[in-house]
Amino acid sequence: MSAIGVFDSGVGGLTVAREIIRQLPNENLVYFGDTARVPYGIKSPQTVTRFSIENILFLLKQDVKLICVACNTASSFALPVIKNNFRVPIIGVINPGVREAVYASQNKRIGVIGTKGTIKSRTYETEIKQFDPKVKVTAVACPLFVPFVEEGWLSGEVVLSVARKYLNPLKEAGVDTVILGCTHYPLLKPVIQGILGSQVTLIDSAKQVAFEIKKILASEELLNRGKGGKHKFYVSDNPEWFSSLAQRFMGRKILNVKKVDNNV
Amino acid sequence: MSAIGVFDSGVGGLTVAREIIRQLPNENLVYFGDTARVPYGIKSPQTVTRFSIENILFLLKQDVKLICVACNTASSFALPVIKNNFRVPIIGVINPGVREAVYASQNKRIGVIGTKGTIKSRTYETEIKQFDPKVKVTAVACPLFVPFVEEGWLSGEVVLSVARKYLNPLKEAGVDTVILGCTHYPLLKPVIQGILGSQVTLIDSAKQVAFEIKKILASEELLNRGKGGKHKFYVSDNPEWFSSLAQRFMGRKILNVKKVDNNV
Repeated sequence: MSAIGVFDSGVGGLTVAREIIRQLPNENLVYFGDTARVPYGIKSPQTVTRFSIENILFLLKQDVKLICVACNTASSFALPVIKNNFRVPIIGVINPGVREAVYASQNKRIGVIGTKGTIKSRTYETEIKQFDPKVKVTAVACPLFVPFVEEGWLSGEVVLSVARKYLNPLKEAGVDTVILGCTHYPLLKPVIQGILGSQVTLIDSAKQVAFEIKKILASEELLNRGKGGKHKFYVSDNPEWFSSLAQRFMGRKILNVKKVDNNV
Repeated sequence: MSAIGVFDSGVGGLTVAREIIRQLPNENLVYFGDTARVPYGIKSPQTVTRFSIENILFLLKQDVKLICVACNTASSFALPVIKNNFRVPIIGVINPGVREAVYASQNKRIGVIGTKGTIKSRTYETEIKQFDPKVKVTAVACPLFVPFVEEGWLSGEVVLSVARKYLNPLKEAGVDTVILGCTHYPLLKPVIQGILGSQVTLIDSAKQVAFEIKKILASEELLNRGKGGKHKFYVSDNPEWFSSLAQRFMGRKILNVKKVDNNV
């Protein structure tokens, strides 16, 4: 039975895969993490788009019926190019997060945090304005958050002090809703919430992404009617490193991670 | 006239290129930074070796007479495979740093700091022991140093506090000499020296690497007899980002950085 394909630059997309598995427990899932070329957040639109196309071609070889781009940078840069050009639906993580944030915000001031690439692309701003032109968007790049999460620095004075510096413009702008525009950031939720205060809503798009995938599969009558989906995990490098980080992102161990070559 | 080829995963190798240009002002130099796949420090030996071979093949197309692997991770992982297999001499950055450190150390306790890959490879330990089996080596990975340098966080409480944590094992081991086993680390010299104290000698292998290149070119009668070398800079992604960081690493602006595809 065909699977849901998910790709990311590395491990971050596992926060999205986890939610897809939770909401669609009967679906097969194939995950690809491009760990040989991670991270994407500092790379150019052209290069991220090329990598994304290579990842999609790899997933299509694995018999997938839908592909989720579980990486904000790839969604920002590549989605316009790849969205309607392949033989299966391709879902990014920007639009679902945007929709949720616009509904959640009362004061129409929304903050966005992400990688340099995601913020520079201004994709979040553009999509938010399309939903509601009146929203004031404050977008900030937080380049040290990904290394912190991957090194397991999820709390403590160092992380707090960097986070305070990054998040200050959001506090000054008086946002009531903040989009966690990078799949690594949900792991820093306690730190971010602590700094912004409990009155600020943090939007982690994973739930909304999984919900949208469910809707599309249902409407196209592609839902798996069998029981108990199977999950396969592929990476382009370092399967052991991926496995060891998976616990942090998936909440459980992943065994049998296979190394493959995704170069076309 | 043939050039000296230099490659690195990204911008770090510019600290080595700068020293080569200083000691060999009449030589042409071709630099390649693999910015599409940076960083190498978290990737597997197989992948780093594959990338290194692709970089070497690119440089050989540019008419080089010698290649310098200006990246500690690539030197650690790939040098044993690539050293004697190409048609020009290939020089890494490990051996020159080791030699200088062994000469500098009085108490025979040497510290090494580097990326995860470099430290995990134990290449520094092996090479130090080959010079002097009595030396006690303490090696520590400092994975957040590269992101700090690339983000321009070269001082301040955050960097100090992370550096104190990383360097503590070196202080406890009582080392009198520390090898900066990553081309980014010379930019953190003031922080590192401040924590370790002025009695500790920091070894930045760039000077020694340039000196060794000079020696080899002289002995093979390959030195350029003309005046005023030309310098070319290529990257696999983001020439603007590379140019903007070059000031920090080279001490001067680099114009005309060309983007090329180094995939074989």
